[in-house]
Amino acid sequence: MKHMELDEKVIKYTYGQPIETDAVVLGNIKVGENLSYLALEGKSFKYKLKKDIPVYGLGESVRGINKRGWIYESFCSDDDMHTETKRSLYAAHNFIIIAEEKPFGLFIDYPGRLTFDIGYSQLDELVIIPETMDLDLYILEGDTLLDIVKTFRQLTGVSYIPPRWAFGYQQSRWSYKTNEEVRAVAKGFRDNGIPLDSIYLDIDYMERLKDFTIDREKFPDFEELVAELKRDGIRLIPIIDAGVKVEEGYNIYEEGVEGDFFVRDEKGNIFEGAVWPGKVHFPDFLNSKARAWFGQHYACLMDKGIDGFWNDMNEPAIFYTPRAMAQAMQKVEESKDKNIDLGTFFGIKDSFSQIMNKEEYFKEMHHDMDGKCVRHYDVHNLYGYNMTRAAGEAFEKLRPSERVLLFSRASYVGMHRYGGIWTGDNRSWWSHLLLNIKMMPSLNMYGFLYSGADVGGFSDNTTEDLLTRWIQFGIFMPLLRNHTAAWTRQQEPYAFEHTERLKKWIKLRYALIPHLYSEYMKAALEDGMYFKPLAFEYEDEYVREVEDQLLVGESLMIAPVYEQNKTGRYVYLPEDMLLVTFEDEKTYTLTKMTKGHHYVACDMDQLILFVRPGRMLLLGAAADSTKDLDMTSLTGIAYCKEVCHHTYYEDNGMDRQVHLEGHVTEVEIKKENNHFNIKLKNAPCSVLEKLALTLFDNETETITGIQYDI
Amino acid sequence: MKHMELDEKVIKYTYGQPIETDAVVLGNIKVGENLSYLALEGKSFKYKLKKDIPVYGLGESVRGINKRGWIYESFCSDDDMHTETKRSLYAAHNFIIIAEEKPFGLFIDYPGRLTFDIGYSQLDELVIIPETMDLDLYILEGDTLLDIVKTFRQLTGVSYIPPRWAFGYQQSRWSYKTNEEVRAVAKGFRDNGIPLDSIYLDIDYMERLKDFTIDREKFPDFEELVAELKRDGIRLIPIIDAGVKVEEGYNIYEEGVEGDFFVRDEKGNIFEGAVWPGKVHFPDFLNSKARAWFGQHYACLMDKGIDGFWNDMNEPAIFYTPRAMAQAMQKVEESKDKNIDLGTFFGIKDSFSQIMNKEEYFKEMHHDMDGKCVRHYDVHNLYGYNMTRAAGEAFEKLRPSERVLLFSRASYVGMHRYGGIWTGDNRSWWSHLLLNIKMMPSLNMYGFLYSGADVGGFSDNTTEDLLTRWIQFGIFMPLLRNHTAAWTRQQEPYAFEHTERLKKWIKLRYALIPHLYSEYMKAALEDGMYFKPLAFEYEDEYVREVEDQLLVGESLMIAPVYEQNKTGRYVYLPEDMLLVTFEDEKTYTLTKMTKGHHYVACDMDQLILFVRPGRMLLLGAAADSTKDLDMTSLTGIAYCKEVCHHTYYEDNGMDRQVHLEGHVTEVEIKKENNHFNIKLKNAPCSVLEKLALTLFDNETETITGIQYDI
Repeated sequence: MKHMELDEKVIKYTYGQPIETDAVVLGNIKVGENLSYLALEGKSFKYKLKKDIPVYGLGESVRGINKRGWIYESFCSDDDMHTETKRSLYAAHNFIIIAEEKPFGLFIDYPGRLTFDIGYSQLDELVIIPETMDLDLYILEGDTLLDIVKTFRQLTGVSYIPPRWAFGYQQSRWSYKTNEEVRAVAKGFRDNGIPLDSIYLDIDYMERLKDFTIDREKFPDFEELVAELKRDGIRLIPIIDAGVKVEEGYNIYEEGVEGDFFVRDEKGNIFEGAVWPGKVHFPDFLNSKARAWFGQHYACLMDKGIDGFWNDMNEPAIFYTPRAMAQAMQKVEESKDKNIDLGTFFGIKDSFSQIMNKEEYFKEMHHDMDGKCVRHYDVHNLYGYNMTRAAGEAFEKLRPSERVLLFSRASYVGMHRYGGIWTGDNRSWWSHLLLNIKMMPSLNMYGFLYSGADVGGFSDNTTEDLLTRWIQFGIFMPLLRNHTAAWTRQQEPYAFEHTERLKKWIKLRYALIPHLYSEYMKAALEDGMYFKPLAFEYEDEYVREVEDQLLVGESLMIAPVYEQNKTGRYVYLPEDMLLVTFEDEKTYTLTKMTKGHHYVACDMDQLILFVRPGRMLLLGAAADSTKDLDMTSLTGIAYCKEVCHHTYYEDNGMDRQVHLEGHVTEVEIKKENNHFNIKLKNAPCSVLEKLALTLFDNETETITGIQYDI
Repeated sequence: MKHMELDEKVIKYTYGQPIETDAVVLGNIKVGENLSYLALEGKSFKYKLKKDIPVYGLGESVRGINKRGWIYESFCSDDDMHTETKRSLYAAHNFIIIAEEKPFGLFIDYPGRLTFDIGYSQLDELVIIPETMDLDLYILEGDTLLDIVKTFRQLTGVSYIPPRWAFGYQQSRWSYKTNEEVRAVAKGFRDNGIPLDSIYLDIDYMERLKDFTIDREKFPDFEELVAELKRDGIRLIPIIDAGVKVEEGYNIYEEGVEGDFFVRDEKGNIFEGAVWPGKVHFPDFLNSKARAWFGQHYACLMDKGIDGFWNDMNEPAIFYTPRAMAQAMQKVEESKDKNIDLGTFFGIKDSFSQIMNKEEYFKEMHHDMDGKCVRHYDVHNLYGYNMTRAAGEAFEKLRPSERVLLFSRASYVGMHRYGGIWTGDNRSWWSHLLLNIKMMPSLNMYGFLYSGADVGGFSDNTTEDLLTRWIQFGIFMPLLRNHTAAWTRQQEPYAFEHTERLKKWIKLRYALIPHLYSEYMKAALEDGMYFKPLAFEYEDEYVREVEDQLLVGESLMIAPVYEQNKTGRYVYLPEDMLLVTFEDEKTYTLTKMTKGHHYVACDMDQLILFVRPGRMLLLGAAADSTKDLDMTSLTGIAYCKEVCHHTYYEDNGMDRQVHLEGHVTEVEIKKENNHFNIKLKNAPCSVLEKLALTLFDNETETITGIQYDI
């Protein structure tokens, strides 16, 4: 049925001999003969960009929501300097939409290096350059941008859905190194009354940095710790790195060698690189047997009570290879006792300073793609995706009925079926808070709905005001995790002077979870976007340049403050909206705002959001953990104008099998003759029992305190 | 007389045994007994910052105009990553103003490393930490922020004044390497009709990178080239680096050794570092004889027709020392044939990747401060300042009546008497365009009026739209130089598709020079600021948070567009103003705008500026070079409301001796009974002959075409 409809909207063009990426889940897509829209000139696809027409997409990449004016490369890169000049980050997201009056989308299913020159070389030209002409190109048509996104998502499969507890606040750092440190963090939150659902274990929990091991000196009572924290509503989330330490007697290493599960070099030897554990081998995630083998090992931690993981270093990151190290050392050797000129100096310096993640490593590595030997470089962008697929496929067997938290650093189109992503090693920069805001809707286009950046910033030292503003935005991100690097100042909310202020915004997150989780589930189950740019729902002369406000779900617009020393900001309203200014999670004022440009006050003690006309915000009560959230009694703030409609989804937050049917409450409000006519339709599985309504109509009248027992 | 007044406004506190920096030019400052405002606690000065009170100052540093929320270090640093997390850039600017209702300023005259923790450790605390307690601390009082700035400037001396041709458009890159390349650049401008006044010579014009030499293979006809270009209104500006190449037979090297003019190490040997020429010695600019010796060598280029210089690498930058290089190589040697663990790997990597500008080099270097041996590290921030002082003092002798263009990368308070600064190796980032905008008023507080950032960005590749927007801001900067690095794409305005658009904004610069030069001279001669934050002239609830609009001189407010893919921006008007929207240098529309928040259209084909009420914008006609500018006939656009006053300064653009008296035309306009009453008072030396006036009053009436023959 789906496919019948898609036939009208998608055309596939195949060039050369594409390598199967499994990005697309639907078969029998209509095959095109003559390429439309684009012109194939030599080895690149070209398109003339009309003046001021935005180009959306590219998911995890630098710069704006509108990608015009830069050159981007899809080549998953472990690069921790996310400045605007970078061409690649950790992901390869090859889908764009050209937002002309009749918009169209382009998806290039190609696992190698792919360049998008979007007005960089020539201001008004789009040029797409694959390294080799072996690819599937999909042209997607639709009446609206959201239509095209929906089509793309139908093509690539339903988004991953995490357990509801993954919407709680999560605390991380590299690393909480011992059970004492972990307990101290939990105590820090509980003593201060700050809600918390997860504490992360970065690499140091492992025994000599070996995957699927636990350092028993630092965590002698790991299982007890997991159980004890879980009773208090806090889960431990360990990291899993891609590289497997080379160490005799280490079961994963030995099984991998024995089972022939590791990536080999061009001569057929097992490829050796160095990452955190020192020398490692890389599991051949592009091989189905290796995937199954690696995936099953997550069980050893799940058996200890672990319910979630983050997959890291899976671009893959390679610090050096023995060969590159020997070459660099040789260069030094040759210059010894010689008068070093400047060229030699920079040569030596660069041979060490640029030794990480060299292209030549990826050219040495080779995969066995279920019988076919493929050079890693040509399928580089599939590696992290397939590591996460290995985990996701294993979880389906290991936990057939329950959801498992999973997200990854590297990704490719299609990985959104198995897990979310976090946006890697960002920095404690105000500009990265803004980048975080701009990146979210682009990720959502790809179905990476469960995603987020490290709140407060990973590298560099944060400041209290930056963390405060980041949390104020972060409470709208599905993945709300405060994470920081090994060399930075403490970043837990209780490490700052105004803990109470940080706490009240985290509490607001918990009060919002019923609403946000419901919006997330609707987006996931309807192939929609949780975060949208304004231009995806509105059309006027201003919206397409608004990149610092986002629509959240169907009801809300947010306008985060992302600049230092500001107590307000400009906000553009594409239609009349209801401004909700929170003083804390329970206290707020409502102001009707008219369509147009506004300067809105919002100091760090305030948080603003906007309810769209005809829509509703639902608020619950905060709790220390999602397990204590009361989902049965909510407050609705409705901006009715004439009518208001809201669909509220709930479930037990844990079942793998999800569908809207049977899980939604429909609220319908109509204003007739100065009277609000309210209808509620409750599904059989709904747990909503009480709804207190605050109605705000178009004539500045407010009616509060209507309480519905359902 | 001045001093009598200052006595009321400045108090000096001396701690320990300060090293004389010559930052302050006035003697007999009132000495304080009990420290006011600040509390001295241990080895730091503390002050409680009230909520939302801005702190201004620190000149060349990252982040906003309001410096709250970060920790800064005054320690001149050759660091080409100007991200918001950096603590030091190339300058040491130790003056701040705390903008309370009764504002006060602090100047810490201290040549060593000095830390300003402005709400970083604690949100509401200012902590100033010198490394040793040997310093002069000045407290400056005044009724307004501008009062305090003026007092500071009276304390530290009158600003450097460049020749007027230095207000022309300047083109640079690292490097135009031959006389052919230089001629091609000049031709590129002239063929396209793009105005140009200077072409820069980066390091490659020198013979083996030796100061005060010319590579005669690449520039066989250097003198002819200089003369030929000058006839066409284009000057060549060579770079001078701090380090002197160690090379037998090279006159500067040999004189320096013979005259004992070089910095020595702790053992008394001449200190050796490596920079661009390879091994170098560093002139001891803190020694008056060495200064005089080095300074006189500029004559060898001036004798060839050169009228301006830029002093570079004078923090000083040191790539490595033979000792550090040997140590790093030793580390490799020790690890050879060993199984390298990760700690060893990072140790080796860092010993090369972090070999540049190490603190230990500065601790090895020692100065002879006219008889007193001083460790360089303790006076580090004086080095670049005194290199530029060496040049400035020499120019006074070599060109006693004419101005010479001079600016520097490193600087300290007081260097503004000898030259300007450019803000070093920025990047082709939109965020660096914004940083440029924010940095300019902070530099102006210190009297660095002749300053600017590399327009288009130095490192990384620019884009046409970024260059366009940067030029649109840059035409208001006294130092308007397009400069880029060795590894970047072409950045000349004729290298892009829409050359005509870039050209029209450069032509507008030339049409504005009469106005901008006049504003510059008034600021310089009255110890004022050419660029001011809005909060330095207005007081209301919004202005102190406006960091992306600037006042330029007395009449104008600018609001540059600094974001990609934008065709307009928000502008806050602290009072009614007249919007001038330029379509090109001759075509503009005038719109009366009311006090408050506005969204103003401004695509790349438009340029907006605002005339303040009671003020006037003067426009001349563009020309290919400043030498062809007609200063005798101007158009005035006056926003009269009730009255309008403008003081127009002119001179021959070249005399060292400058004063307002005798050089200004006063224009006074009063509206009386619906009639404009216009008075012009022309000074004896004035060349202004014709003034065409467009008057704009408060009742939307416009009167144009009034022509005054003077």
